[in-house]
Amino acid sequence: MSIFNFSAGPAMLPRVVLEQAQAELLDWHGSGMSVMEMSHRGGEFQQIIDEAIADLRELMAIPDNYQVLFMQGGGQGQFSAVPLNLIGRTGRADYVNTGHWSTLAVKEAARYGEAREVCSSAGDAFHGIPDRSGWELDPRAAYVHYTPNETVNGVEFQDIPDVGAVPLVADMSSNILSREVDVSRFGLIYASAQKNIGPSGVTVVIVRDDLLDHALPITPITLQYRKYADAGSLFNTPSTYGIYLAGLVFKWLKQQGGVAGIEQLNKAKADLLYRYLDDCGGFYFAPVEASARSRMNVVFRLRDESLNADFLAQSKAAGLLQLKGHKVVGGMRASIYNPMPLAGVEALVAFMRDFAQRRG
Amino acid sequence: MSIFNFSAGPAMLPRVVLEQAQAELLDWHGSGMSVMEMSHRGGEFQQIIDEAIADLRELMAIPDNYQVLFMQGGGQGQFSAVPLNLIGRTGRADYVNTGHWSTLAVKEAARYGEAREVCSSAGDAFHGIPDRSGWELDPRAAYVHYTPNETVNGVEFQDIPDVGAVPLVADMSSNILSREVDVSRFGLIYASAQKNIGPSGVTVVIVRDDLLDHALPITPITLQYRKYADAGSLFNTPSTYGIYLAGLVFKWLKQQGGVAGIEQLNKAKADLLYRYLDDCGGFYFAPVEASARSRMNVVFRLRDESLNADFLAQSKAAGLLQLKGHKVVGGMRASIYNPMPLAGVEALVAFMRDFAQRRG
Repeated sequence: MSIFNFSAGPAMLPRVVLEQAQAELLDWHGSGMSVMEMSHRGGEFQQIIDEAIADLRELMAIPDNYQVLFMQGGGQGQFSAVPLNLIGRTGRADYVNTGHWSTLAVKEAARYGEAREVCSSAGDAFHGIPDRSGWELDPRAAYVHYTPNETVNGVEFQDIPDVGAVPLVADMSSNILSREVDVSRFGLIYASAQKNIGPSGVTVVIVRDDLLDHALPITPITLQYRKYADAGSLFNTPSTYGIYLAGLVFKWLKQQGGVAGIEQLNKAKADLLYRYLDDCGGFYFAPVEASARSRMNVVFRLRDESLNADFLAQSKAAGLLQLKGHKVVGGMRASIYNPMPLAGVEALVAFMRDFAQRRG
Repeated sequence: MSIFNFSAGPAMLPRVVLEQAQAELLDWHGSGMSVMEMSHRGGEFQQIIDEAIADLRELMAIPDNYQVLFMQGGGQGQFSAVPLNLIGRTGRADYVNTGHWSTLAVKEAARYGEAREVCSSAGDAFHGIPDRSGWELDPRAAYVHYTPNETVNGVEFQDIPDVGAVPLVADMSSNILSREVDVSRFGLIYASAQKNIGPSGVTVVIVRDDLLDHALPITPITLQYRKYADAGSLFNTPSTYGIYLAGLVFKWLKQQGGVAGIEQLNKAKADLLYRYLDDCGGFYFAPVEASARSRMNVVFRLRDESLNADFLAQSKAAGLLQLKGHKVVGGMRASIYNPMPLAGVEALVAFMRDFAQRRG
């Protein structure tokens, strides 16, 4: 039986990447060491991190005036790091609230300055994205923060919002590398690794040079972007094995036609699943507005929620793992990041159709 | 040729641990998932982290009124987290300075309160430990911080200093689990994983319950001990694979007779190397005072430093890797953490004897 893992993160990794990691786990390229055993100051690891950064720069066409940093602490670490490093420019920041993670981000930022919600879809149970025309942006904000894809709510921006001259900051944890984006439109992009990049414990930060030197005096050393930029991410010991895995994933992605290639596959996967949800006659339904539906996290519900436990037990038995929705919204969620093949979504739809026929 | 890796960290791991990780990399215990692909909220990972914590509690005989936390950010993350969480009790803290890492720790703490050096061996080039009788401790300090083992300088406390009723905080990054310690003597112990615990990217914090609730209001969420204690370390997504590896190392250590068993081996390894250094007739020498010599990081120099490059090249060719000293002190350093077998130290001494005969 094929197994497909729909976890929202940590999430499935490409099989060939895991196989390569397994093959070289005891001895990397004849060095006599596992990657886990290498000094982060040695030539072997320097080669690994240099290649990872170069490959990510190529995949995202990152301009030269941006730094690529590998940090620790995940997206929530950046909920603090972003205001600590940036809000000092003017003392205030604008936040777009489209779901669970945006809500936590603005709450944390408010501890370090005037962090203001410029719009919110909370009244709509986060099923859509507030129209850009209604956002009350402050031209004196140090930055505008938004969440291009809300992992919990399954809501995704289809375009990059225009916020004028104020630096745009994006929490791309759950859709980085899944679709083409113009990095030059952003002041800063951050992403925890455990969806489209690699194992948990690595956080990628892509930051424009002019935003490196505004940290508040209270910023802990391990959250200061400038220190990581000056040290090529080796300010302190990073998650070396996580960076190695991320590098393998970047090489795999290049072989898939890069971001443009994987975006076509991601679109096909999401279209297949949403089309079934819309056409299934109501046994299942997708609560998110069509214009805001995430390609990465497909949130859906059963009309008769008393069948939820059966659905989860039978899907697991069929090799379709971790379909339970996040506890704050309930229902179901199929996370279909880059490594999920089309066959996984086809297997899910086939199971859902069969379950609906048997229990409908 | 056997290869022995003397890196100061990330450092060598037990071969059997790496072999087990390799065997189950693609499929953990029939779950159909790599550990890297598991949700940190799922039952499989809960079992992994529960066992890791229970094994660490057993190995160190950690009393019930202490929490075991897995965090991110390494020792330097804790240089900020310790004052941010603890200094608020009284606004001041005492720091014992015995080397490179203590120096950085007190510098970071001074950003969050009155952090004061109560003694320093800087005048002695950090080759010894200032006598306890000369420390000017402040009874109103929120805590006393010290570094039981200085990785760079090769200086180690042989006993736990008595600091009265003030909570004692220890950066045990480079000697945790290498010798028996009475945890009840400490308010807080922290350690980055990449020496005696597992791969880099995991930080262990052992903290007494009464110290959880003194965080300054500016403390970033991912550095707040209370949040990790309340969530069983799953406040946010931890380095799941790193915790799994740490758990395997803990099980391996139990098979070595626990901490008491490995301490005997560590003592034999260090004794063998220091004895050779003292008896070799001066071709090599150990600069650290005999009473303060580290069992983990054996710092030594060649009398004729023009031979350093040759020594490093030939030792590497002989399979003895990463013997170069830290850049701030120069010379050589053999880090011989728990996983280093006695045979590794024997091979090093044999090589050193041969090199001295050829070049002396």
